[in-house]
Amino acid sequence: MPGLYLEDLKLGDRFQHGSHTITAGEIVEFARQFDPQAFHLDEKAARRTFFRGLVASGWHTASIGMRLFVQGSFQPEGGFIGVAVDELRWPRPTRPGDILVADSEIVEISRSASRSDRGRIKVRNTIRNQRGEVVGSLVATMIMKRRISVR
Amino acid sequence: MPGLYLEDLKLGDRFQHGSHTITAGEIVEFARQFDPQAFHLDEKAARRTFFRGLVASGWHTASIGMRLFVQGSFQPEGGFIGVAVDELRWPRPTRPGDILVADSEIVEISRSASRSDRGRIKVRNTIRNQRGEVVGSLVATMIMKRRISVR
Repeated sequence: MPGLYLEDLKLGDRFQHGSHTITAGEIVEFARQFDPQAFHLDEKAARRTFFRGLVASGWHTASIGMRLFVQGSFQPEGGFIGVAVDELRWPRPTRPGDILVADSEIVEISRSASRSDRGRIKVRNTIRNQRGEVVGSLVATMIMKRRISVR
Repeated sequence: MPGLYLEDLKLGDRFQHGSHTITAGEIVEFARQFDPQAFHLDEKAARRTFFRGLVASGWHTASIGMRLFVQGSFQPEGGFIGVAVDELRWPRPTRPGDILVADSEIVEISRSASRSDRGRIKVRNTIRNQRGEVVGSLVATMIMKRRISVR
């Protein structure tokens, strides 16, 4: 299936993606590699910390969000070329057994002033748990191809 | 060794962390789990993409940065409690064999208005490759404990 070009999008377009159930094993495995702190590594030790139990690294939650986004219902032609992320937030922690779902909304669209074959969009991606609580959100700036038109 | 409290920091404090050499295998492994796109999965297929070769997922670069940060020379008491990240950028891609190094600078310090036992800081984390080029940067907002003092 051909991917989407800049011209195919309009402000406010929304996309609903798939879901992922996160396990304690995944949380610990990610943390061992990238974020080795007590509250990400061991349930018992985690109980005595700020979070009072095992929680996923924020980078793990964000990476799962990327997976849902990349395999979701928004498919740009040429892939996801991210150049920036702002407003990355974790209003609540992700805990073992949480079922994460993600959606996207197009919040900005602009053509390149210098390159006629591309433009940029800003997409707000939101990750929620099974109770509908936001566990992660961000605004990504991405490069999108334009359809080459006859001048 | 006891960790740092809010009062131990001043604006402009800098911390140099360790290094990590990223392999093609790591890039592909991370991508399979979290960012399955051609330019992260397969060197040959990647040559025909925007990046003209295998590159790490931006989330992988950021996660390696977190690892260097967590195991680095800045150790807050109670761990790294991140509440927000802004200005996450990838000015250049990370490629196989790159040696990544990270440093941090304290760019904002504030006490909590409502909680006398804590405050917030903003830290600018920068990840560079072996040529000194920035491959990732961000500003993290973190909660820091205050020393409980006699009033």
